[in-house]
Amino acid sequence: MAQSIFSRIIQGEIPCHRVYQDEHVLAFLDIHPVSYGHTLVVTKEPAPTMHELSSRAAAGLGAALPRICRAVLGATGAEAYNLVQNNGTLAGQEVNHVHVHIIPRYADRPVGLGVRWEPIEVDGQELEELGRRIARLC
Amino acid sequence: MAQSIFSRIIQGEIPCHRVYQDEHVLAFLDIHPVSYGHTLVVTKEPAPTMHELSSRAAAGLGAALPRICRAVLGATGAEAYNLVQNNGTLAGQEVNHVHVHIIPRYADRPVGLGVRWEPIEVDGQELEELGRRIARLC
Repeated sequence: MAQSIFSRIIQGEIPCHRVYQDEHVLAFLDIHPVSYGHTLVVTKEPAPTMHELSSRAAAGLGAALPRICRAVLGATGAEAYNLVQNNGTLAGQEVNHVHVHIIPRYADRPVGLGVRWEPIEVDGQELEELGRRIARLC
Repeated sequence: MAQSIFSRIIQGEIPCHRVYQDEHVLAFLDIHPVSYGHTLVVTKEPAPTMHELSSRAAAGLGAALPRICRAVLGATGAEAYNLVQNNGTLAGQEVNHVHVHIIPRYADRPVGLGVRWEPIEVDGQELEELGRRIARLC
């Protein structure tokens, strides 16, 4: 399988505006940002999606997030932000390599991220059965 | 400060459709789901936002995600999903306690999550300076 563009960035074949790296992750600015300070945190383990990532790599990804978020807020002055991580084409994933978007939000700067959030109809009995089914698989 | 509703769920004062728990997280079905199988993964450490979460708790949160995602996919039949974690009112955060939304996506079931994603104008020089500023704070 061809390497993802993120693996090539990790290997230094393609440049980036790097902001952080450690054993588990590389973080750099998105060059097509949807807001000022939009940062990508990419796992060094080249799993395509979160459910295919090892628990160890996922722990390393999680551990790095608070410090990178603090630095993004400190440098941009933002006070709010979304973390978004897409898995699969239907979910808008464009590069098949796990990456978390850190997207600062501003009242007074343009932000090209809009989220529509509408609850669906749900049946209490169905919810209970689904919960048990997921629990058995965890 | 008053406890969040999620702390009360963790303590068993409020019921939930629990799907998983360990030392660091509790996961349960969202009772106002935006799609079938919409699951919340809540940190047991009661930090309001990701940048205020300890590195250890964030590692625990990360480590739990792959297995919970696998179980949600297995139980729902979804193949794609978004992880969304909101910080601050401007970012749509409603409960001030770190939680990750796992939102399965379907071609053939209703999904009440819509994402508008439009890059903003950006200047290469500005991006380079911002990258250096974030890196210094990491």
